Amino acid sequence: MSEAEIVAKLRALFPRVGDDAAVVGEQVITTDMLLEDVDFTRAIETRFLARKSLAVNLSDLAAMGAKPLHAVIALGVPPWLDVDAFFDALKEAAVEWRIEIVGGDLSRADKLIISVTAVGEAKQPLLRSGAKPGDRLYVSRPIGGSAAGLQFLQKPPQTPLFTQREVVESAIRRHVDPEPELDLGQKLVAIATACIDISDGLSTDVHHLCEASGVGAAIERARIPVFPGLGEARLGIDVRQAVLHGGEEYALLFTSALREAELSAKVRRPVYAIGRITREREVLLDGAKLAPGGWDHFAPVSS
Amino acid sequence: MSEAEIVAKLRALFPRVGDDAAVVGEQVITTDMLLEDVDFTRAIETRFLARKSLAVNLSDLAAMGAKPLHAVIALGVPPWLDVDAFFDALKEAAVEWRIEIVGGDLSRADKLIISVTAVGEAKQPLLRSGAKPGDRLYVSRPIGGSAAGLQFLQKPPQTPLFTQREVVESAIRRHVDPEPELDLGQKLVAIATACIDISDGLSTDVHHLCEASGVGAAIERARIPVFPGLGEARLGIDVRQAVLHGGEEYALLFTSALREAELSAKVRRPVYAIGRITREREVLLDGAKLAPGGWDHFAPVSS
Repeated sequence: MSEAEIVAKLRALFPRVGDDAAVVGEQVITTDMLLEDVDFTRAIETRFLARKSLAVNLSDLAAMGAKPLHAVIALGVPPWLDVDAFFDALKEAAVEWRIEIVGGDLSRADKLIISVTAVGEAKQPLLRSGAKPGDRLYVSRPIGGSAAGLQFLQKPPQTPLFTQREVVESAIRRHVDPEPELDLGQKLVAIATACIDISDGLSTDVHHLCEASGVGAAIERARIPVFPGLGEARLGIDVRQAVLHGGEEYALLFTSALREAELSAKVRRPVYAIGRITREREVLLDGAKLAPGGWDHFAPVSS
Repeated sequence: MSEAEIVAKLRALFPRVGDDAAVVGEQVITTDMLLEDVDFTRAIETRFLARKSLAVNLSDLAAMGAKPLHAVIALGVPPWLDVDAFFDALKEAAVEWRIEIVGGDLSRADKLIISVTAVGEAKQPLLRSGAKPGDRLYVSRPIGGSAAGLQFLQKPPQTPLFTQREVVESAIRRHVDPEPELDLGQKLVAIATACIDISDGLSTDVHHLCEASGVGAAIERARIPVFPGLGEARLGIDVRQAVLHGGEEYALLFTSALREAELSAKVRRPVYAIGRITREREVLLDGAKLAPGGWDHFAPVSS
């Protein structure tokens, strides 16, 4: 079965599966699993693995406009893992993001498996399905850094200049230690009409949002904010590819009738209008069709 | 770190970790992960893997006296898995046990990983910590079948007689398709003083219950109900070992001041008093010390 077939089957059997998190009463619940050699390699520092496993789940809560409540973690522990460092970092992240870890399950495993489930409170959850023609389409912060960071990790640039080094380090940091947009998500509850987090890449996630809302979008390439320094650094990164299709950004992609200046004032931080929601059910970039080209969770596993 | 050290660290960092499920308001939440080549092999039918991944979590809800509400599943999908059969069986089990699957996460993986988190409603959750000296100690059903079933799977008996074949098949069934004691758990809320499910083995789980309650126990071997036919079948099983130390039973082990006849009448089914809770903080079997000898989740992984 292809991923699309599996997802179609899942939605038929389990109708509530589909948004970033499932709405159950005034709560939302989400689960995300990170696997060694699929989502990360053991070259990544243990503390970042712990933080990221929580961050990707909290980003789903953020996309629903939810306030974090509690989480549980199931861990497959390989011999190489520094369990002490892992749990210390998990605790620190949980305190920082104000979520309590209330339960866990441990098994020995040959590769590291981190499966987190997070529960949040959302009296008015933000869904993917509320975008209306005429709404503006927003991203919450500059993107492309995570995909660039992953490339820098896999193939470190030779003899970078000082200014390039800063870009490399901050992009790697964005990749290994993403920040979930928790505060913004909660502020958007009364403001946004639809919201999703960019985990699969802008081009893929804008399709998810548009399909759920029964709309299309027209995006202007020049308005998409690029991760700081990436455009100028000449580090061998395909910036267009990273910005349009790079996954694991954990920026929010959302829609609202408000203008950029008004919305930024309301949430008291910059946000970036990159286009408009359209009645025609297709996604356009500068007038040409934009195909989903992001992360495919069902691409073959490299090991 | 040993398992004991890891668990001690976890409890220090995350104080709510410890019971079968964590209590959060009027809900309980639990997570359990099943791993290929650790918890099962791919020789087990797919439909049983789906059912069991839900059953082990529902057994934790049962032990808390909780009513199942909803669950999420993260799945690492290896090439050999029949995804269609897996989700069909999961749906069937969810309907049978009255829990809704509301969310999921799929990844490609080289081995099957099934990570389920289940949420239940429990206004008065049953804890491990309420056992009082003088209480009777109960098991909810005959035990030893799961460990025997696992041995039969690993080394099928040669030319069994007809009556032996029945025992073999029912023990294998107990192992691959355990039934969570959901109805009993909810009935025990007003009756039991402490409760745990037997996942690690009677000898280990009675220690968990006694340690949490600050008590000991005196068990009579002759009163422990043995899985039907196992004692007589002469199939090369160490019955004493299977009954005392065999894991993955998912029977409930609980305490109550009530006598067996009275308790059975209240819950309208047989339950089995196997001993007494004592003030002395040690676990005795027919007067001799009973050491924990059950399943160790941190035994080396065979692959």
